[in-house]
Amino acid sequence: MNRSGVHGSAPASRVTLLTDFGTADGYVAAMKGVIAAIAPHAVVDDAAHDIPPGDVHSAAWVLAAYWHLYPRGTTHVVVVDPGVGSARRAIAARLDGRFLVGPDNGVLTRVLAAHDEGAADIVEISNTTFVSDVVSATFHGRDVFAPAAAHLARGVALSDLGPALTDPVRLTLVPARRDADGAIAGEVVHVDRFGNLITNIPAEWLPAHASVRVGQRDVRVRQTYGDVASGEVVALVGSRGVLELSVRDGSAAALLAAARADAVIVR
Amino acid sequence: MNRSGVHGSAPASRVTLLTDFGTADGYVAAMKGVIAAIAPHAVVDDAAHDIPPGDVHSAAWVLAAYWHLYPRGTTHVVVVDPGVGSARRAIAARLDGRFLVGPDNGVLTRVLAAHDEGAADIVEISNTTFVSDVVSATFHGRDVFAPAAAHLARGVALSDLGPALTDPVRLTLVPARRDADGAIAGEVVHVDRFGNLITNIPAEWLPAHASVRVGQRDVRVRQTYGDVASGEVVALVGSRGVLELSVRDGSAAALLAAARADAVIVR
Amino acid sequence: MNRSGVHGSAPASRVTLLTDFGTADGYVAAMKGVIAAIAPHAVVDDAAHDIPPGDVHSAAWVLAAYWHLYPRGTTHVVVVDPGVGSARRAIAARLDGRFLVGPDNGVLTRVLAAHDEGAADIVEISNTTFVSDVVSATFHGRDVFAPAAAHLARGVALSDLGPALTDPVRLTLVPARRDADGAIAGEVVHVDRFGNLITNIPAEWLPAHASVRVGQRDVRVRQTYGDVASGEVVALVGSRGVLELSVRDGSAAALLAAARADAVIVR
Repeated sequence: MNRSGVHGSAPASRVTLLTDFGTADGYVAAMKGVIAAIAPHAVVDDAAHDIPPGDVHSAAWVLAAYWHLYPRGTTHVVVVDPGVGSARRAIAARLDGRFLVGPDNGVLTRVLAAHDEGAADIVEISNTTFVSDVVSATFHGRDVFAPAAAHLARGVALSDLGPALTDPVRLTLVPARRDADGAIAGEVVHVDRFGNLITNIPAEWLPAHASVRVGQRDVRVRQTYGDVASGEVVALVGSRGVLELSVRDGSAAALLAAARADAVIVR
Repeated sequence: MNRSGVHGSAPASRVTLLTDFGTADGYVAAMKGVIAAIAPHAVVDDAAHDIPPGDVHSAAWVLAAYWHLYPRGTTHVVVVDPGVGSARRAIAARLDGRFLVGPDNGVLTRVLAAHDEGAADIVEISNTTFVSDVVSATFHGRDVFAPAAAHLARGVALSDLGPALTDPVRLTLVPARRDADGAIAGEVVHVDRFGNLITNIPAEWLPAHASVRVGQRDVRVRQTYGDVASGEVVALVGSRGVLELSVRDGSAAALLAAARADAVIVR
Repeated sequence: MNRSGVHGSAPASRVTLLTDFGTADGYVAAMKGVIAAIAPHAVVDDAAHDIPPGDVHSAAWVLAAYWHLYPRGTTHVVVVDPGVGSARRAIAARLDGRFLVGPDNGVLTRVLAAHDEGAADIVEISNTTFVSDVVSATFHGRDVFAPAAAHLARGVALSDLGPALTDPVRLTLVPARRDADGAIAGEVVHVDRFGNLITNIPAEWLPAHASVRVGQRDVRVRQTYGDVASGEVVALVGSRGVLELSVRDGSAAALLAAARADAVIVR
């Protein structure tokens, strides 16, 4: 019998939180308190709270890094919500057995884009039974998204949160393209803590012996960081299955003075 | 039956941690390890760990953002403790069914101020049974507050931790005041990650069509961020029920060069 | 009956995560998702995620701050892994009833150094049954260490992960030494968030009325921060049982312009 055998019951439902709230103000804790009050058995995981303030593109990219790795039944909450208090809708979705809750501002774009059109059931969160009695103008994480997620975690049906919706806001994602001369034109879609430049160029598009141009620099595609010396630039297939540029023991963003949306050309 | 129906038992007791320890040194993890050893069933939530070092005012403000949202029975630990190792007392309190544990330096000021005098049962943590065998001079989070909180989470009575105390240290909070000419004189009490300037001026004091002066700037009170253009200053009632100043898609603290304790005048 | 009495079962097994991933990219969340999928009952604690990128020395020091405080059965994961994708091994260890999982780059050095040679059972994680089907070149936290740890948390035997190993990589730790003239020559081994300079000089080596030299400054050893005025330098025995230098209400690292590996002399 393994150690988990002492548990006779099913695991608790799980809620993850992705925000731009940082960890100096108590906003995350307010969301956790609301969830604990409504769904005391739910397990709450911090996904990431240092998304740059209001950076919906970054939130969409980060969410897609982990949401599918969690078991079915998990409820993922995303609160990067620069339009809070405006007419933007609050939405909840069920996709591949997992729930997603957040503002309708494109944070789900990458998750939805990886599935067939119509694969997700999406509703507008409008049933006041499942949000706070008083909804502030500035903090729907606490007043709308946390309670809605907690109710989902307790087993409330998605359709009980509000009416179905088929036109969620989507960010415009520019896909990489293959030019007639065989070159691949892509761009940087995320810069991570290590200064890695993550692109939109799929690994399976890369030719053998490919060379990558970023800014004025040409870089050969390798297998791993260890294929270059410390401080050198390397291009490789990263953990998301796309081309990345890195500096071993350093920052590609700093060394190449590169940022999101910069062009990346593969030949 | 909802998903939570699979749990036959009561939820585990819960402990939250609010510190200025950051997340680069293992101090938070040491507290969690101590709690796990004493109260293995307790659920531990990170509230916030990036309080500016030693900033008791900030900790007091942040704690008040979430402590009451958690269900009764929760134990909230606050370790922002610049006086560790001095004669300052360690205290634990029960207020409105929740427990609070921390140094007696004013961190509970805002929580206590929101209740009637005497509503809280407060004790000095002095019973060596419920703290670590060896108490360091520099880390009472690990050696005093974590074990005391874990014992409360296990069901030890508050009064077992030590003798009652009625004179907890309180920070001096300057309330907003209404002047004879109808003006309201308040101040900034917290600046959050977004650069929002949160004041001590209650929403219910605000006259219709109010104008707010901060520094050399006059700002109209609106309903929501969306009422101004991107980059503009807006005054509104925030999630704490008080007047806040914000810049849509920006930082009011940066744009107005404002900081905690700056004057805010409403007419 | 105390509150924990409602739990009839043993506590769930526990996994802690120590990384240099920060909290802006979703890497930590990906590890948590993998663990939740394999070991849904395991409790996952964030230990610290702001280790400076690639700083194995810092990770080793931080891990030693908390790993032993957790109850036996805990699995501690460390992913500070600048050599990911190179030939460096992945290892798992059992020491004093707890498990340790991470790259074989020295992160376990301080934990191992505190025990007798041979006290730890160590294996190379090589059994592909217990890692992800596809292992990326850049993110073994998600693909190797999280799944291996989750399997340990479920009760898989350490020896099932791979063959025993007796030569884990160890960092070179320079111990403090006592000179013939009675002086103690040590160095700074860690600088924490508060700017405290933590040394390798054991408390029990300190003579009465000791004086400490750092850079050009001589500092007397005291009992506690409160023994000096605000803004002054103090030397004392900190929470790790070694000599530390601090500035009350300030940063010793800033005031003394000191950093890791700087010399510290006690007379």
